[in-house]
Amino acid sequence: MPGAEDGFEVTPWGVRGSIDYDRLTERFGTERLGGELLGRLRRLAGEDHFMLRRGIFFSHRDLGRALDAHEDGRGFFLYTGRGPSGGTHIGHLVPWVFAKWLQDRFGATMYFQLTDDEKFYSKKGMTLEEARGHAYENALDFVALGFDPGKTRIILDTEHIRTLYPLAAKVAAKINYSNTKAAFGFTGETSIGMIFYTALQSAPCFLEDRPVLIPLGVDQDPHFRLTRDVAPKLGLEKPALIHNVMIPGLRGPGGKMSASDASDALYTTDDPDTVKKKINRRAFSGGQADVEAHRRLGGDTDVDVSYQYLRMFFEPDDAKLARIRDGYRSGSVTTGELKAVLIGAANRFLEGHQKRREEARGMLGRFVLEEGGARWPER
Amino acid sequence: MPGAEDGFEVTPWGVRGSIDYDRLTERFGTERLGGELLGRLRRLAGEDHFMLRRGIFFSHRDLGRALDAHEDGRGFFLYTGRGPSGGTHIGHLVPWVFAKWLQDRFGATMYFQLTDDEKFYSKKGMTLEEARGHAYENALDFVALGFDPGKTRIILDTEHIRTLYPLAAKVAAKINYSNTKAAFGFTGETSIGMIFYTALQSAPCFLEDRPVLIPLGVDQDPHFRLTRDVAPKLGLEKPALIHNVMIPGLRGPGGKMSASDASDALYTTDDPDTVKKKINRRAFSGGQADVEAHRRLGGDTDVDVSYQYLRMFFEPDDAKLARIRDGYRSGSVTTGELKAVLIGAANRFLEGHQKRREEARGMLGRFVLEEGGARWPER
Repeated sequence: MPGAEDGFEVTPWGVRGSIDYDRLTERFGTERLGGELLGRLRRLAGEDHFMLRRGIFFSHRDLGRALDAHEDGRGFFLYTGRGPSGGTHIGHLVPWVFAKWLQDRFGATMYFQLTDDEKFYSKKGMTLEEARGHAYENALDFVALGFDPGKTRIILDTEHIRTLYPLAAKVAAKINYSNTKAAFGFTGETSIGMIFYTALQSAPCFLEDRPVLIPLGVDQDPHFRLTRDVAPKLGLEKPALIHNVMIPGLRGPGGKMSASDASDALYTTDDPDTVKKKINRRAFSGGQADVEAHRRLGGDTDVDVSYQYLRMFFEPDDAKLARIRDGYRSGSVTTGELKAVLIGAANRFLEGHQKRREEARGMLGRFVLEEGGARWPER
Repeated sequence: MPGAEDGFEVTPWGVRGSIDYDRLTERFGTERLGGELLGRLRRLAGEDHFMLRRGIFFSHRDLGRALDAHEDGRGFFLYTGRGPSGGTHIGHLVPWVFAKWLQDRFGATMYFQLTDDEKFYSKKGMTLEEARGHAYENALDFVALGFDPGKTRIILDTEHIRTLYPLAAKVAAKINYSNTKAAFGFTGETSIGMIFYTALQSAPCFLEDRPVLIPLGVDQDPHFRLTRDVAPKLGLEKPALIHNVMIPGLRGPGGKMSASDASDALYTTDDPDTVKKKINRRAFSGGQADVEAHRRLGGDTDVDVSYQYLRMFFEPDDAKLARIRDGYRSGSVTTGELKAVLIGAANRFLEGHQKRREEARGMLGRFVLEEGGARWPER
């Protein structure tokens, strides 16, 4: 497994320890997102996004090439996805919300891949049918975010495999077992489904004849490192990536929010009371041992999960966020008050989201990929 | 690679050396086909087949279980296939002709898998599109043999992957890299497409809820050894197999007829003059150095390719074959005369086959698998 020597580990199947994003960028060989390129992205988008301002999207590969394609009129397309291991939580929404913004600002088509096969391969005890069920629920959350049905296609691996497999086969022919061992730490015990799967995650990169830009959690980067190695061998364009940081679970920094641990995550289907209880009981606090000490010393917003959730997702308004931050750091805002702010913001978001999510049930068909192309025999 | 110690090697991708079928049976762990079981097969079929009488089908796994299912009314279904690496030659037709007989005698449905992906993975320089082209031509030969369109379905891997992949995924989850290494001798250099592929070759075994019987060249046995290991873990029935010997190339015993070497094989599309030239120029002779010696010593039918082609495929009539054999062994039939017999028989067969093959162009659609099942989203 590539480097656990810095006290943390980030792979597509798990995150351990407290991530040092400077070191991770170095370890993965990605570029920090900043300076001139970040300015160019904002200029071409015509506006800023709080996830850019706050470094939630912090790293990239070849973003400049995607922007070149936009400027020269070819355009880029978008691709992201979800491994349907359970319900959708707030951590999943981060790249999707950002992708929605990219679609709006750049007029880009969007492919959303639900990898039911991968979850079946990687989660002990999960059937393919269960993963398909989760995929349906996840797709509702995706659609609820407001993507353009004319420019957005949802792909379910086992359903749309006729579109994916020929592309995946071309990728798979150029990746050998040793490559996957180096990228993912696979062993002789790894199932041949899991070994092949990375080719299926690569396939949507080549659905259009222009560059793809992939907003995604940085933990998924290893898959696309292989894709980027293979693309030139197939005469295809390397995917461009823009990476977000890992969203912590309620229990605090270290690791990421997991869809498999209901008590550690805020789900999109949680009701207001559940949200309140989860945050009050579980959310890791950056506050002091008692209120008196807190008033005197102030809280630590870097580790406080409630503050981080507001920063990463629920409070796009910089001025409001700054007031919360300053108040908590100075001790004038207690942990209880900060949690109340998050509970309010989360429940306001979820009320609207859950309404749109129910509406999505009747709309899903408009978003599902239609498989065209010649049927065999062609003659 | 399992055992080359006996001076021969048989894998799904190549045959080397002169095969000792007793040793191969032992090495692969299959059962010789004979005695009571062979009698039972003939009795249930209601007639004998020359490929059984002559040991062309010489080995099996669990044939008795397939016959049990026939007797208890559940029945079995048939599955065989072709890796579309080029044109169809006589060697390919052997298991198909036998499968047609099994369909007729047992009323069994038949699935015919064209593995364009596997040939793309295994043949350097072959594109997926080229393999699809070969698959079309191969399918014409299959249909030309007279299968029942109401009971026969042709599957092309890249086309019908939506039916195959969910089944393959369930198999793939139970096979690890070490298993494929042991079965096929895969290494770190093997492509992940090739590593996964065995799961796709397993998938058709589970298309119906009753046992499958697979007539196939014994070189393909390793794929189904893995399938047979996996099936009980999935609560599915192990496939039963019935194996034919390898059909030699024109150059003689050792190896098998290759679809990639046009001069070494009799193709179904060869014209009469090509057949004549190939047999006269290339067919390995069991005769003596000159006619005088041949008249005195006689020829060796065991190594004579012309005789073997008559025995294995072109001359079902035992009495006629015996006359040819005795004549050649005694020296009264020369190699030239024996070749003339084969040329006549091959061209008579090919004349009818090529006519049916052209008729198949308009019928192919009736044989191609239709993919049903619920579409996603189901709700």
